[in-house]
Amino acid sequence: MSPVTFTSAFPEPDARLLAVAESLKPELTRTRLPLRNVVEVERDESSLLGWKAVPAAIPVVEDLPLLDSGKSCVLDLGEHVAGYLQFDVAGLPFEKEPADAPARIKLTFGEVLNDIAEPFEPYNGFLAKSWLPEETVVLQRPHYKPVTMRITNRYAFRFVKIEVIATSIRYGLQFSNVIATAVSSAPRQNPPELTFSGPEATSLKLSSEDKAMLLKIDAAAHTTLRNCMQTTYEDGPRRDQRLWIGDLRLQALASYATFGDRDLVKRCLYLFAAMPFNDEGLLCACAYEEPEPHTGGNSIVDYALLYTNCLLDYVNFTGDKATGDELFDIARKQFDLAARRIGDDMLYVVPVPKSLLGGEEWHFVDWQESLEKSTAIQCIFIFCLRALVDLAKVLGKPEPTVIVAGKPVPAAKLADQLRRAIRSAAFDGVKFLSGPDKQLSWASNAWAVLAGVTDSQDEAQKALLAAYETEGAVGGNTPYLHHYLCEAFIKAGLREKAVEHILHYWGSMIKAGGSSFFECWVPSQPRFSPYGAFASQSFCHAWSCTPSLLLRSMGLA
Amino acid sequence: MSPVTFTSAFPEPDARLLAVAESLKPELTRTRLPLRNVVEVERDESSLLGWKAVPAAIPVVEDLPLLDSGKSCVLDLGEHVAGYLQFDVAGLPFEKEPADAPARIKLTFGEVLNDIAEPFEPYNGFLAKSWLPEETVVLQRPHYKPVTMRITNRYAFRFVKIEVIATSIRYGLQFSNVIATAVSSAPRQNPPELTFSGPEATSLKLSSEDKAMLLKIDAAAHTTLRNCMQTTYEDGPRRDQRLWIGDLRLQALASYATFGDRDLVKRCLYLFAAMPFNDEGLLCACAYEEPEPHTGGNSIVDYALLYTNCLLDYVNFTGDKATGDELFDIARKQFDLAARRIGDDMLYVVPVPKSLLGGEEWHFVDWQESLEKSTAIQCIFIFCLRALVDLAKVLGKPEPTVIVAGKPVPAAKLADQLRRAIRSAAFDGVKFLSGPDKQLSWASNAWAVLAGVTDSQDEAQKALLAAYETEGAVGGNTPYLHHYLCEAFIKAGLREKAVEHILHYWGSMIKAGGSSFFECWVPSQPRFSPYGAFASQSFCHAWSCTPSLLLRSMGLA
Repeated sequence: MSPVTFTSAFPEPDARLLAVAESLKPELTRTRLPLRNVVEVERDESSLLGWKAVPAAIPVVEDLPLLDSGKSCVLDLGEHVAGYLQFDVAGLPFEKEPADAPARIKLTFGEVLNDIAEPFEPYNGFLAKSWLPEETVVLQRPHYKPVTMRITNRYAFRFVKIEVIATSIRYGLQFSNVIATAVSSAPRQNPPELTFSGPEATSLKLSSEDKAMLLKIDAAAHTTLRNCMQTTYEDGPRRDQRLWIGDLRLQALASYATFGDRDLVKRCLYLFAAMPFNDEGLLCACAYEEPEPHTGGNSIVDYALLYTNCLLDYVNFTGDKATGDELFDIARKQFDLAARRIGDDMLYVVPVPKSLLGGEEWHFVDWQESLEKSTAIQCIFIFCLRALVDLAKVLGKPEPTVIVAGKPVPAAKLADQLRRAIRSAAFDGVKFLSGPDKQLSWASNAWAVLAGVTDSQDEAQKALLAAYETEGAVGGNTPYLHHYLCEAFIKAGLREKAVEHILHYWGSMIKAGGSSFFECWVPSQPRFSPYGAFASQSFCHAWSCTPSLLLRSMGLA
Repeated sequence: MSPVTFTSAFPEPDARLLAVAESLKPELTRTRLPLRNVVEVERDESSLLGWKAVPAAIPVVEDLPLLDSGKSCVLDLGEHVAGYLQFDVAGLPFEKEPADAPARIKLTFGEVLNDIAEPFEPYNGFLAKSWLPEETVVLQRPHYKPVTMRITNRYAFRFVKIEVIATSIRYGLQFSNVIATAVSSAPRQNPPELTFSGPEATSLKLSSEDKAMLLKIDAAAHTTLRNCMQTTYEDGPRRDQRLWIGDLRLQALASYATFGDRDLVKRCLYLFAAMPFNDEGLLCACAYEEPEPHTGGNSIVDYALLYTNCLLDYVNFTGDKATGDELFDIARKQFDLAARRIGDDMLYVVPVPKSLLGGEEWHFVDWQESLEKSTAIQCIFIFCLRALVDLAKVLGKPEPTVIVAGKPVPAAKLADQLRRAIRSAAFDGVKFLSGPDKQLSWASNAWAVLAGVTDSQDEAQKALLAAYETEGAVGGNTPYLHHYLCEAFIKAGLREKAVEHILHYWGSMIKAGGSSFFECWVPSQPRFSPYGAFASQSFCHAWSCTPSLLLRSMGLA
């Protein structure tokens, strides 16, 4: 037979670094959860996503009448998990004759009720349709003794719709022992709930309603993070299931504040370090684990730079300077590579991307086609440069330099040059604008504040509020940008705004029925998707897990 | 949790008889067959079933270009098997980026090309749609290293269509090591080919074309029988997959003439004996094996009577009188039960069935709604009574009696009474007719001949030829009846007619593309199905396996 041959287009991974990463691969905790509650999914015009679940007339799956061709039921686990489904199924006769034909059973895994209540077809997404969370299985010989069926693929779900596509006229199916086995490398136990008891919390004068909602948000954030913590930090257990630098940074920070993970972050840092995107050492934006770790197919400039921040955060949290030392040069290298796009005017030039997804030209910031990214990217560059300086300090290294136009420039000096340039180009005295059309956006102003491009607390507050409160300013489509907006609010001393925004933004996902947080979410356009189809996204997504971090960083623990 | 409880509506099986059956459960032989040949399926108006397979431009599956969303290929094993499919599949990138999404792959198992070339939808069959031989599997993490996927359900197939429902734009699938694992309790090796060398063969003056076709027919008959020989004699490995008395009798006879099986027949005889349909001891028409042997949901009068013939055949072939002794009373009992329908005029009354399938009112004879069955059933009764008499003789028992109208009547006497009655009621001097409308059919005349209701060889020949050659006579829809027609031809000394009919009938299945023989087949209406949908039938079916038996019984070995 012709052998299957495959040669990677990417550099050979660094075996030593990879071995470190592999030595840190965690064992997953498996938690068996019974899935018994039958719900009816009803239209609910008052809900942002249009549906609500109510207990069914017969609320327990084992008590349902036999299900035959065309019948279905929806089970509600009551919580969102990443894991496996199994169930027992017996084929019982309606009258005298025994089950006489196979059973064809379709399973739909719902992170939100829409997955269950709305058909996936017609599918207009441009991401692979194969991600749609459904499987059809054939039990060739159903009979009166329950048979255990195990779905071997892992899914992300709270709801499971069981549809009997076909039995025969003789018999129907009785389902029992439906079990969701949740898997995660995070602890099953949530960290202690927020107490709102410290002085920083008291000063916020939160209503009891707000506190109740913040507790829900906090719990959903834990769920979100836990379900993304597998053998890497995945971006989403529903779709992609990959490790991305930008997501990793936020997950790691949230994890330090909650589950206290160290090793999984370290593993992920080493995975990226071991598998560069090209021979120059550019980091890839994402990585795959199977069949053995291999390089993701794209690089994102802002993510490559933020690797430094992720490494700094890790060293600060763990004190593990050895890892910092080992990965420092790889982190620093990213600045040399990105700095090639800095012009004589010290402004970073964001190229027109060759394609929406992938390649080496990708600058992310947010899933936002209308966003003019140059100011935000320039500020991210500065933000990351400052982390590079800090990292060198923490590690006791000399101040790092970055090659700009062929010459090494001390990182702090470069940060200042970039800062001056963007202030001069983008700051109108109140707020930061971006591009030739002077676009006002959250992204530009949040990153300007985070990067210390603003001159004062007052300036930071004004810039943020101008962006936040101006009708028509470009906002955020993903919790990724919303996180950095809130972080900027906090940095600028606008804790009330941060809480208000968390309640508004993440709270609206809870109100829309989320038990975890979504990849993309625009409360005013609840069906928004950057992927062309609402069902293409993960409804449990890495970069939306940060409310737990934000709330704790504001002293609400 | 509520326990799943189920109480059978049928009598408790006889544990001792069941234990005998279970002790004879065979180990299956597993044969791994590579499935490499890629074919194109083309319209062929000259073929009865409308399709032909030609080698594809790239004829080997491993050499195909990567298959992505919407692409498919058809593989041809070159022979028909009952078994399992497995394959290796790698997801290889089109350009630089690795496989980044699941693969959804649909498999369709084709016994004939129509299964592959024509959509199953819309499905108008009244048998369970869940029998349609297709599965969709999801490989959640395809990558460059081939992963082995195993379809755990058993299918009957020669062709496999692999359809890639969805990958992503980044990658396609490479299939390799596609393996069909054939399973059977019959030997893999066919019995010696027909030689046509004996005097009986020579006298038939077969053309070399005829001989070539008969060899093909014989081989397909072996394939058909082998694929039905699993842990019982199944009726068809595609659909039903059950043991039926009527099918068993023909399979057993064919097997005696070819593979020489004894134990599987014995197992099946004991299974039926152990699991009666009701407390009176009526035999069920079919039986199930899983999760443990249990009673099928119907009884067929002609099948219950033919159990005696099957037992007699077995004792005659094996000399195993102990089994004959043990099961004799159960066999004989069926006559008492059926005889209740004999009227004062000694004519058996076939009731209008309550439903097409099932119940205790079922008289089969053939899948033929227009067939008037009373003459055929009366003759089958006689045919079986004669076997009962013979069986008692072979076993050294006294002549058995049958209860008719409350009184025991010696079996031979009853046969004579029934014979006289049906001759008087149905014989017009040339041929046997049936029912008030005096319907002429193959069934009435074939069974009259087989039961010795005809008075002479000459009368038998004339009756058969009248039925066979009269336009408008009701013919046969299934090979089951065609077998008994041929057996009647042979009994009546019309070997030429038998050969001619085998060439015509079973030969037309070969010409239509069959590599095994079908459950239902009407050459002049190739899309005929008694089940409402052509794809509902088995294209490898128990009762069509008898040409090997018929040809050998005519001395063509």
